[in-house]
Amino acid sequence: MNIKVLQINENILAENDRIAKEITEKLKKYNILSFNLMGSPGAGKTKILEQLISGFGNKFLCGVIEGDVAGTFDSQRLKKFDVPIVQINTGGGCHLEAFMIKKGLDQLPLEKIKILFVENVGNLICPAEFQLGIEKNIVVSSTTEGDDKPAKNPLMFKISHLCILNKIDILDPETFDIKRFTSYVKETNPYLEIISASAKTGKNIDKIITKLFELYNIK
Amino acid sequence: MNIKVLQINENILAENDRIAKEITEKLKKYNILSFNLMGSPGAGKTKILEQLISGFGNKFLCGVIEGDVAGTFDSQRLKKFDVPIVQINTGGGCHLEAFMIKKGLDQLPLEKIKILFVENVGNLICPAEFQLGIEKNIVVSSTTEGDDKPAKNPLMFKISHLCILNKIDILDPETFDIKRFTSYVKETNPYLEIISASAKTGKNIDKIITKLFELYNIK
Repeated sequence: MNIKVLQINENILAENDRIAKEITEKLKKYNILSFNLMGSPGAGKTKILEQLISGFGNKFLCGVIEGDVAGTFDSQRLKKFDVPIVQINTGGGCHLEAFMIKKGLDQLPLEKIKILFVENVGNLICPAEFQLGIEKNIVVSSTTEGDDKPAKNPLMFKISHLCILNKIDILDPETFDIKRFTSYVKETNPYLEIISASAKTGKNIDKIITKLFELYNIK
Repeated sequence: MNIKVLQINENILAENDRIAKEITEKLKKYNILSFNLMGSPGAGKTKILEQLISGFGNKFLCGVIEGDVAGTFDSQRLKKFDVPIVQINTGGGCHLEAFMIKKGLDQLPLEKIKILFVENVGNLICPAEFQLGIEKNIVVSSTTEGDDKPAKNPLMFKISHLCILNKIDILDPETFDIKRFTSYVKETNPYLEIISASAKTGKNIDKIITKLFELYNIK
């Protein structure tokens, strides 16, 4: 049968840009490289973060701001590393906002941190609508989510500086066509680099680390 | 190091209950069984829907309201079935609201439909905050998302009448402990039945269909 399409627009509320700018200035002052990890629940953001922190080792102190609706699951997973962590619970809210990051930064030893990771709330939509003042956005997608996600939720891919395609070790060609995924990403953001990786096996984590520095023109 | 926890509460806006009640009344008047499928992007909601519609066959005419931020991907997948479909594009919005369902119902042949499925926007958080007037909520979770999701995002599990645990065919015991998942679900909602299933292989789709009728006390 025919499909009827209704367009229903919604205003996006984004009144937090002033605080976001303050945050960017503060991080620049402390010479901190900052990355905002976003993606669906279960895409593997925390597991990627574990691999990255492990990869940086003792060379650069990382700081982490963890965003979740409830609980400290992700923070608990990172406790094994000797890095400062702030857990933010939004109490229902589906994304982080700049004022939450501002409060989080107050709890971190900024003079020591070289790299700041923010792990946003697991959600492929709303986090993309709120600037946090974190300079580089990373979208983590996974092969188990299906290859249509960049087309169905384009904004997060549009505003990102790097796309990590996680769970490449369990890619099922019946449900995930990497060419189709790539073409949807490129339609939305022609300049967005995609790095296929596996946080489980560690595949291409080194490439991601190199890329994080490249995003700041550091070789 | 120690983890610092900040609690940030947000008011949940839910002014659409009046419309939701209208919708419930309307569906009762037409004697339609209605189900609201919710879950993360890539949990397998559409694939479950394909199996259910196929399972109902010609015995009961299904109607479908598809909710997505953008595109008609899910509707296109259902086009092979001879069922009426309305695609709602929220244009950025991360969930369906009652007024969207009201508009959707206007486009459907309610006098013919016996079962109405709403597939909400892929998002484990916000859709749970907005009543749609659809009588039974179903949360679709998947083994690839990790077993901590009910604890990190409890509301959707709390308001659901059935939990489908999809992708049971590719459960990786290293990353998903079904006992832990079950205990998190029961902590949130002790009465919520979990049916493990695979939309890919068709496993336990028959059990889900039986349960859908049971939710309406039909045997």
